Amino acid sequence: MITVKEIASLINGEVFGDGDVLINNMASPEFALEGAITFALDNDGLEKSASSKAACVVTQIETAEFSKPVIKVDNLKIALTMLYNLLNEKRLVGEGDINTSAHVDPSAKIGKGVVIGPHACISENAQIGDGTTIGANAVVGKEVKIGKMTRILPNCTIYDRAIVGDFVILHSGVVIGSDGFGYLPHGGRIFKVPQLGRVVIEDEVEIGANSCVDRGTFGDTVIGKGTKIDNLVQIAHNVQIGKYCFFAALNGIAGSAQIGDHVMAGGQIGVKDHIKIGNNVKIAAKSGVIKDLEDNSVVFGYPAKESRSVLREFAFMTWLTKNAAKIRNMVKKASEEEYSKGAK
Amino acid sequence: MITVKEIASLINGEVFGDGDVLINNMASPEFALEGAITFALDNDGLEKSASSKAACVVTQIETAEFSKPVIKVDNLKIALTMLYNLLNEKRLVGEGDINTSAHVDPSAKIGKGVVIGPHACISENAQIGDGTTIGANAVVGKEVKIGKMTRILPNCTIYDRAIVGDFVILHSGVVIGSDGFGYLPHGGRIFKVPQLGRVVIEDEVEIGANSCVDRGTFGDTVIGKGTKIDNLVQIAHNVQIGKYCFFAALNGIAGSAQIGDHVMAGGQIGVKDHIKIGNNVKIAAKSGVIKDLEDNSVVFGYPAKESRSVLREFAFMTWLTKNAAKIRNMVKKASEEEYSKGAK
Amino acid sequence: MITVKEIASLINGEVFGDGDVLINNMASPEFALEGAITFALDNDGLEKSASSKAACVVTQIETAEFSKPVIKVDNLKIALTMLYNLLNEKRLVGEGDINTSAHVDPSAKIGKGVVIGPHACISENAQIGDGTTIGANAVVGKEVKIGKMTRILPNCTIYDRAIVGDFVILHSGVVIGSDGFGYLPHGGRIFKVPQLGRVVIEDEVEIGANSCVDRGTFGDTVIGKGTKIDNLVQIAHNVQIGKYCFFAALNGIAGSAQIGDHVMAGGQIGVKDHIKIGNNVKIAAKSGVIKDLEDNSVVFGYPAKESRSVLREFAFMTWLTKNAAKIRNMVKKASEEEYSKGAK
Repeated sequence: MITVKEIASLINGEVFGDGDVLINNMASPEFALEGAITFALDNDGLEKSASSKAACVVTQIETAEFSKPVIKVDNLKIALTMLYNLLNEKRLVGEGDINTSAHVDPSAKIGKGVVIGPHACISENAQIGDGTTIGANAVVGKEVKIGKMTRILPNCTIYDRAIVGDFVILHSGVVIGSDGFGYLPHGGRIFKVPQLGRVVIEDEVEIGANSCVDRGTFGDTVIGKGTKIDNLVQIAHNVQIGKYCFFAALNGIAGSAQIGDHVMAGGQIGVKDHIKIGNNVKIAAKSGVIKDLEDNSVVFGYPAKESRSVLREFAFMTWLTKNAAKIRNMVKKASEEEYSKGAK
Repeated sequence: MITVKEIASLINGEVFGDGDVLINNMASPEFALEGAITFALDNDGLEKSASSKAACVVTQIETAEFSKPVIKVDNLKIALTMLYNLLNEKRLVGEGDINTSAHVDPSAKIGKGVVIGPHACISENAQIGDGTTIGANAVVGKEVKIGKMTRILPNCTIYDRAIVGDFVILHSGVVIGSDGFGYLPHGGRIFKVPQLGRVVIEDEVEIGANSCVDRGTFGDTVIGKGTKIDNLVQIAHNVQIGKYCFFAALNGIAGSAQIGDHVMAGGQIGVKDHIKIGNNVKIAAKSGVIKDLEDNSVVFGYPAKESRSVLREFAFMTWLTKNAAKIRNMVKKASEEEYSKGAK
Repeated sequence: MITVKEIASLINGEVFGDGDVLINNMASPEFALEGAITFALDNDGLEKSASSKAACVVTQIETAEFSKPVIKVDNLKIALTMLYNLLNEKRLVGEGDINTSAHVDPSAKIGKGVVIGPHACISENAQIGDGTTIGANAVVGKEVKIGKMTRILPNCTIYDRAIVGDFVILHSGVVIGSDGFGYLPHGGRIFKVPQLGRVVIEDEVEIGANSCVDRGTFGDTVIGKGTKIDNLVQIAHNVQIGKYCFFAALNGIAGSAQIGDHVMAGGQIGVKDHIKIGNNVKIAAKSGVIKDLEDNSVVFGYPAKESRSVLREFAFMTWLTKNAAKIRNMVKKASEEEYSKGAK
């Protein structure tokens, strides 16, 4: 529990009304319960906030008189972000609740305050840390270790032996630890390379809906601390991703790629197998990276090159096409001259 | 129940045999039950239809004598499509069937004739409209509202508070309402922007397997009436999609994009965040749209431009490369002339 | 059970120590149980192997004395691959284990030694072959036929009437048999084309996490024997894929495409609907195939063309841009000359 006044000081807001009211969660007006802080984007939102159960409202618009305490801020998105993270960090381990329909193997070690949804499945020797939530119908494999305060959303699948850190969020449909795409063609047949390694997901990672991280062949596939992965992203076997990276939707990172810290990738990019990408690299959407990239590179296109050079190529191609008739004519004339010279 | 004669008149077919036979569903010959209308693509199909339990067969091939009533049509695909939609609209709310293994919270409101599969999970205060089907292992979050005659296939996940209309189809693995990809980097750390809005899916929308629609940050992500989305498509937070659009597989629509009505997108296209796309726009496969598009635009490429201009660029590039030797030579000669002029 | 000596001879290794020890599975050192053969990449791995429960270790590094039998090989990856496939083929049908929480319709036919995980759902008249495993929360539809020794991982969905062969692996989140993306716009409305066909997955196919294969419209969508499909791949309705093909992650194969045998596709490629691709074709990552390809084609780019010609275009475009100033100048001069000629 934290007071309106304390919140205001932490998010640089100004309090109107009673600053001693206690807050313990945030929600939109429609779904605010007691103790909630809500928000208003506009006057309509203010009205909804007024008639909601919320104890306090954050807004960037002017409010004259109001029926509840108001925190006025300059930028609502930043204010709510700070507040969300504040409440998340201060989040206490609540009361545990293991739905009776969940399948929890007796050998699994379940921490304090763990919530397990209906029909979830926790396999042999799995470990779930304090305050972690396992959504309905999620499947946690054998020997999996999940840290504290982590949220595994419904219908996730974590294969045997994966390691998931603290404060991680895995959205619905995420698959962790599936076999990598490794085969040896030999004598007209195709042999499956055994995938015996693990996936290691460090603390504070968030992975979007229906994304996949394949297990290492012998070693580990690693997603570094604080890295954020959007929906429908493929991370292949043996990939090593550093800390605090962003991968947008529909990215494909091929096997054994090594990616530094603070890398940012737009949507639908691809990275070739075994490529090394340095720190602080920026990769524009839809690019295809097929060679190593140094620290601080800013690349675009396929094959991905330094962005400015690609933009120059695009612009020049447009200019060339605009002048196509002239160029065709020049080439024709030059050929004729060559020809007539040759004929002399 | 509808007679063969009535069906024939609605799908512009000609009846051979008893037109008063009653029909209430359609199926392929192998799986036709009593009361089914089936179809035959060829003579083999006719034989299968003859020995099936179906009450009637639709075909575009000539049939001399036949053991069942036949509806002869000009175009089988169109005929069956009309028939499917006809039967779907006339579909009555059947008998409900909530599998005893499903988890249905007592606070959930379940309509008439709702079918809920094994191990499905319906959370607190969810509402399911009449005649709707929830597949096995699907998860419906808290406060979710689902309309009438909708089909949620197995292993779908609908996060809390999403709104799903009537006659909607969500295929297996679809995730509705996951958190958007929003972060604020600040002081070397990365803060998660709270995602407090909803997803609104209007009537008659169909969403393909393993596609994702993220919830709005504060407001709603909206998929307009009758829009059809293929498999493995990503719709990011705050996106607004109009009515009767088509999005093919592996599309990625980034945050806050606004898309008009009757837009058609080929596979693997991307749309940049905050882009506005007008009505009746056509986007060729694999395009990347990075600026606003007016009504009726037809675009291609990355960055997406008017299709004809892109095709001209492609063709000219091919011509240039074919004439590479001549052009290199011209440039070399021109340089030498410049050089020799400069030297004089 | 097979002896260390027999294994060594089959994987071209040399035995140090007792060659008569019996082996029946393989695992990494941390998770090796009795009877397991494990592996060591390096001295650290050797130490882990020594202290593990494994009965034998395969390695490519030199080992002087060792506490267990060692098989020394030249290439560990190849050796383990051969061994994995060997053990897989020799795999006996084990003891069956149907979790009591699984929903198995009484009409389903379950083979010998079938393992069905918690909360899995096996629907009416489904058939599961001997030794097949159905993971937790997987859903097998009505009339589905699954062969022998196949592994369906957790949270897979197989729609009604699909056919899955022997020794198939479907990873988590895979959706087989969803409706194809087929609509008929007519009179301002959009009609759904009924999807009444099946999916047929032949023996030894492996399909990666969260990939989708749509059912045929009237006929079958077919994935040929031994074909391997990576994660997040879309196979549309009526597609015919031959034998022993490889499709990397995020591929999209549009409706009714026909693909030969031994085709290899890099990540994020697209194939247009109704395209025919011959045998032994290689398609580079991110390509878009929009016309038929003959046997043995090697293509790249979008539209995909013979790889060498695309690389030539890319190289020439780079050269042109480098010489942009000169070319602009040439075009300008040529225009001026034309103009002055015209003016004379």
